[in-house]
Amino acid sequence: DENLKIFSLNSNAALAREIADIVGVDLGKSSVTRFSDGEIQINIEESIRGCDVYVIQSTSDPVNEHLMELLIMIDALKRASAKTINIVMPYYGYARQDRKARAREPITAKLVANLLETAGATRMITLDLHAPQIQGFFDIPIDHLMGVPILADYFLEKRFDDIVIVSPDHGGVTRTRKMADRLKAPIAIIDKRRPKPNMVEVMNIVGNVEGKTAILIDDIIDTAGTITLAANALVEHGAREVYACCTHPVLSGPAIERIQNSKIKELVVTNSIALPEEKKIEKLIQLSVAPLLSEAIIRVHEKQSVSVLFD
Amino acid sequence: DENLKIFSLNSNAALAREIADIVGVDLGKSSVTRFSDGEIQINIEESIRGCDVYVIQSTSDPVNEHLMELLIMIDALKRASAKTINIVMPYYGYARQDRKARAREPITAKLVANLLETAGATRMITLDLHAPQIQGFFDIPIDHLMGVPILADYFLEKRFDDIVIVSPDHGGVTRTRKMADRLKAPIAIIDKRRPKPNMVEVMNIVGNVEGKTAILIDDIIDTAGTITLAANALVEHGAREVYACCTHPVLSGPAIERIQNSKIKELVVTNSIALPEEKKIEKLIQLSVAPLLSEAIIRVHEKQSVSVLFD
Ligand SMILES: Nc1ncnc2c1ncn2[C@@H]1O[C@H](COP(=O)(O)O)[C@@H](O)[C@H]1O
Ligand SMILES: Nc1ncnc2c1ncn2[C@@H]1O[C@H](COP(=O)(O)O)[C@@H](O)[C@H]1O
Repeated sequence: DENLKIFSLNSNAALAREIADIVGVDLGKSSVTRFSDGEIQINIEESIRGCDVYVIQSTSDPVNEHLMELLIMIDALKRASAKTINIVMPYYGYARQDRKARAREPITAKLVANLLETAGATRMITLDLHAPQIQGFFDIPIDHLMGVPILADYFLEKRFDDIVIVSPDHGGVTRTRKMADRLKAPIAIIDKRRPKPNMVEVMNIVGNVEGKTAILIDDIIDTAGTITLAANALVEHGAREVYACCTHPVLSGPAIERIQNSKIKELVVTNSIALPEEKKIEKLIQLSVAPLLSEAIIRVHEKQSVSVLFD
Repeated sequence: DENLKIFSLNSNAALAREIADIVGVDLGKSSVTRFSDGEIQINIEESIRGCDVYVIQSTSDPVNEHLMELLIMIDALKRASAKTINIVMPYYGYARQDRKARAREPITAKLVANLLETAGATRMITLDLHAPQIQGFFDIPIDHLMGVPILADYFLEKRFDDIVIVSPDHGGVTRTRKMADRLKAPIAIIDKRRPKPNMVEVMNIVGNVEGKTAILIDDIIDTAGTITLAANALVEHGAREVYACCTHPVLSGPAIERIQNSKIKELVVTNSIALPEEKKIEKLIQLSVAPLLSEAIIRVHEKQSVSVLFD
């Protein structure tokens, strides 16, 4: 269909090529470069008049550069008479700034939603928002896909005997339950608490992990502090071995070193965020979200329901 | 007046302190830092409820970082119940992307205006926009101040004998005329043209420069290609000496080396853009816009006309 155009920006070029291949179109011709002073220069090198355009971009580190690339691209597409401008954002940056936890904090996740709409986006396709409420920050349609089935399929193939799916904190229990349903396994929860202010945290575990293969699941792994402490606590409580998985491998600061030195046997992630070579350590497995996102693009374009992909 | 608050972000901290001193208030307490993954974290550490807030920030290099800092700060101020949110932007980045010069180009200067309004800005105070039409990109009030008087005063004190004010291209003649009026001097224009396609440009000069002190004036000096070629052409055409000046010292890439090696005797700029130490070469003179911006802030705050500062 020549009315369907897929453009890549700089955050996920390999993923964008994979998606274009599956959908069966060539990537749209464009270039994103810098002027001498660091300002972004975008050239769209083919007509997109009247087309449905899909732009692949995660707002991963460097988040502000990736976000501005996307906003400027949307502006250019709008002025070039695109019929629809669909953002495919595997990883939504600033998602953790989704509420005022303290006085006078910004709500940057909402600001970003407003900026994207102001620029001219007409639809958003994204994956595992840190809080599902962020869907409500948008006034345009949003398709919210899940990484759990992709992660679950990987572990199903391992045909483990006796497993337990573990949430590394109280916030992730719903996700853990979804994963457990797919793997027909029980759940456990790392129940961190501070007995008194100024006392060290106690790593309690709710649920039975003894002798089992434990699979920790989270949406984002950033500095990997929580997940590696959880893995160690699981081993201390008698787990046979510990796997960890997440959709979004932010992996900033000390993350790789911590994972390397931890009790985690394998860390399974998706390519919602592209990883530089030095982060692709041996125990890290990266699964592709290209089939899922391609299916979503095709369904949106053919005006079929996308909700069949929602879990 | 305790209802007037001035906040600095990261682009122009020294200028912000200078402005706060002149206005006679303490700088607002806030911090702008980064999370481990590069996302911006802003803390406003004093109440601004019901206040008129002025935020000092140029969108200079790194432009996308400085712009996002500003947008997130505006969001935080809005949610913290500021009465008005006034942006003081000495240098407006992306101003040169102000029209579609080619097919399918973005108009990023307009996008930026929309983003600032969407975030919640209620007024804009800025200096020497690359095109005055950018004022019309805003729906909020905008005060557009000029650097020419500051630059002119500097040269007036030199009491030169026989001077000519020179525009380095056709686009800058109006600015050159304003400068010439203040210095009671004639003007000249560098009239570059390409006799035929693929032939080298000819540097013609319209006006008389022989034996005179020539002062080149521009709004932005970026890579300094135009201005240094113009200086050399002036010397070739018999100018006695050549000065250059501009409001916004972008000075990217080869700029400093070109200026160092050129016939330019002194380059006079303002501090609309903060310069790192390695760019502060001996022949560069940086004048402060703090008195001008402070006057504008006081006038806005006291509901007096700002237009007396417009030229
Ligand atoms: N990029 C980030 N890195 C680390 N923490 C963040 C980041 N963005 C926001 N936060 C903080 O993380 C908290 C939200 O995380 P959560 O409780 O997991 O939803 C808030 O208190 C935010 O201030
Ligand atoms: N940051 C930049 N550096 C150099 N050139 C730019 C920049 N931004 C925009 N431009 C180009 O500069 C031209 C506008 O400059 P002007 O003719 O002086 O108004 C346009 O063709 C833009 O594509």
